[in-house]
Amino acid sequence: MTPKTLFDLPTPSLVLDRAKLARNIRRMAAACARNGIALRPHLKTAKSIDVAHMVLDEQTQGIAVSTLCEAAYFAGQGIRDIQYAVCITPDKLARVAAIQAGGAKIALITDSVEVARAIADMNGVIDAVFHVQIEVDCGENRTGVLPHSDQVGEIARILDAAPNIAFDGVMTHAGHSYACRSLAEIEALAETERLAAVTAAEAVRALGIECNTVSVGSTPTALYARNLDGITETRAGVYMFGDVFQAQIGSCTLDDLAVSVLTDVSSHRPDLGHLTVDAGALALSKDRSTEKVANDVGFGLVGDVAGRVIAPQMIVERVFQEHGLVHMPEGQRLQDYPIGHRLRVYPNHVCMTAAMYDRYHVVDSESGNGTDIVAVWSRVNGW
Amino acid sequence: MTPKTLFDLPTPSLVLDRAKLARNIRRMAAACARNGIALRPHLKTAKSIDVAHMVLDEQTQGIAVSTLCEAAYFAGQGIRDIQYAVCITPDKLARVAAIQAGGAKIALITDSVEVARAIADMNGVIDAVFHVQIEVDCGENRTGVLPHSDQVGEIARILDAAPNIAFDGVMTHAGHSYACRSLAEIEALAETERLAAVTAAEAVRALGIECNTVSVGSTPTALYARNLDGITETRAGVYMFGDVFQAQIGSCTLDDLAVSVLTDVSSHRPDLGHLTVDAGALALSKDRSTEKVANDVGFGLVGDVAGRVIAPQMIVERVFQEHGLVHMPEGQRLQDYPIGHRLRVYPNHVCMTAAMYDRYHVVDSESGNGTDIVAVWSRVNGW
Repeated sequence: MTPKTLFDLPTPSLVLDRAKLARNIRRMAAACARNGIALRPHLKTAKSIDVAHMVLDEQTQGIAVSTLCEAAYFAGQGIRDIQYAVCITPDKLARVAAIQAGGAKIALITDSVEVARAIADMNGVIDAVFHVQIEVDCGENRTGVLPHSDQVGEIARILDAAPNIAFDGVMTHAGHSYACRSLAEIEALAETERLAAVTAAEAVRALGIECNTVSVGSTPTALYARNLDGITETRAGVYMFGDVFQAQIGSCTLDDLAVSVLTDVSSHRPDLGHLTVDAGALALSKDRSTEKVANDVGFGLVGDVAGRVIAPQMIVERVFQEHGLVHMPEGQRLQDYPIGHRLRVYPNHVCMTAAMYDRYHVVDSESGNGTDIVAVWSRVNGW
Repeated sequence: MTPKTLFDLPTPSLVLDRAKLARNIRRMAAACARNGIALRPHLKTAKSIDVAHMVLDEQTQGIAVSTLCEAAYFAGQGIRDIQYAVCITPDKLARVAAIQAGGAKIALITDSVEVARAIADMNGVIDAVFHVQIEVDCGENRTGVLPHSDQVGEIARILDAAPNIAFDGVMTHAGHSYACRSLAEIEALAETERLAAVTAAEAVRALGIECNTVSVGSTPTALYARNLDGITETRAGVYMFGDVFQAQIGSCTLDDLAVSVLTDVSSHRPDLGHLTVDAGALALSKDRSTEKVANDVGFGLVGDVAGRVIAPQMIVERVFQEHGLVHMPEGQRLQDYPIGHRLRVYPNHVCMTAAMYDRYHVVDSESGNGTDIVAVWSRVNGW
């Protein structure tokens, strides 16, 4: 029997509210339009062609991805402009070429002189043109070359000179915007991000090398940047769904959260004041992003089956592999949540949680009642 | 091209050392033989029929699982005696019946009078006999009834009286053994676990109801229990693979760890003293089990491609979705780990990490060189 409502699904299952997704997409599109900047949606969170179809339009054609599995999946679905936004390693080049053979362009990134040379060395070995960008570090301290370093020019020269490489520009990622706790901090960091990318682009141009792409992005900086002069595109991904952590740092509100985990109450412990749900560490992930923000929600914030948050302190406070222990705050009674009662848990970090599922069960809290299943959308996981 | 060695695989990939798995299985079998107790291996970690075939023998026939997906998978592979060791909810009963229709017996567990009644109420509604055990809490404070509580007898009476239920006994799980930090503590907790199960079983028998199964288990208590009088079987799962956390609490040694994540070095940051690998939060999980033990390994302990630990402080200290930042300890030099260099990361908590992959690439560090792929084994994920 095809499940018609959330009451027909096995638990745990992943639920996506299409109305909230659409609203989040409109909000980011408006922010980008305000800044006159092209958006390159990052599909590392959604990993779904159905979500991509909602976010792509005449102005928004290219995407970013975080795995070659995603690149192959989206290329196979007809998306032609894909940025693989994780440092390339030479042993992945044959796979990139195979994906490109279907007609897509995969922009690669690197922060390494050695990798730039290794790609150039594939000339005559792999029959492909590789599109390569330089990753710049704007302060995240993860990967990337520093914007003022000599490596920017050195890598650009190697990429520009290689007959099998189309040098594609520079990119940076202000992932440390997640540590910002005020709008002023995010605005300042967006400017730092912009400057890093523009500085690197200017260094490349000073060598007489064209630098077409100057790419920045993270959900907070994409939403709140005030000046994007010199930038050609911004990337963001988690904004489509939102999560409790993003709500706490101000990227969205709790009412914007589009993804939740459907779960059943499975046990009561009146002596301990908790109930157990059948969504545990695997169903929710062990991400603890909210540990360091104002309202720690443990492993997730509990909503009712229609997706309404019940109480700010009704959270999954402990997890085991398949058990989530829900704290019952003042005013909540176990008997109101009998075993088999369905709830929806909003995750801390939706990228981690969604990755445990191979599909979205789509509901619509605006055009529908929020519990009827209006579609089932696939996801691509793994590498 | 079928990958022949670990150098042919895409990264990240999951690697299983068959020699270490076999040794871990022998060690647990010996512990159970010493205690004269039957082992019911818990397949929630391995989720693989190939691993089950290694662990099952004449003495070891039944298994435990943590999801109905696993139950259906193993039943489909011919395993007939399966305990679904997570509290059943009534809406899962139709699926249990469907799995049993193939010939397997699925033992369910509950800690609830209401659920016992709900299963009994399925008489005439679902055409199946349900095998049900009472879950007892031996101090884990998760699910289960307290061993001395009236609920033990109340649930047993309902289960025993129902024509569609075969009352199957009692079970408990000393999951809090993971918090033990000495052999003496584990031994004491194993006795607490035994007493809880035996106390509940005696309470049932005092009602004139047979209690055939008296089931306990967790990897630490299964290995180190000194007295299992009155117990009919012990369950354990993570011992098959081991992980850094289990090594730190003394369930195994670092040399016993059978599962690791194959990864490529993807970036160098000499200015920050770290290298980046392409195994991040999704490839390793965000489990931080080792945070509270003596040697915190961050998100994983780094080994070479043959699986040898490089240095105790060479760990994945930060993760992003697809990036792992590896701390370079004193004496380790970035230039010895060029981009593209392959490493293997031992996870904190292997149940979480393995769940991100759909297969094991099997190597053998005894009969082989530790990098040749001798088999590919499937896994079953999801619910």
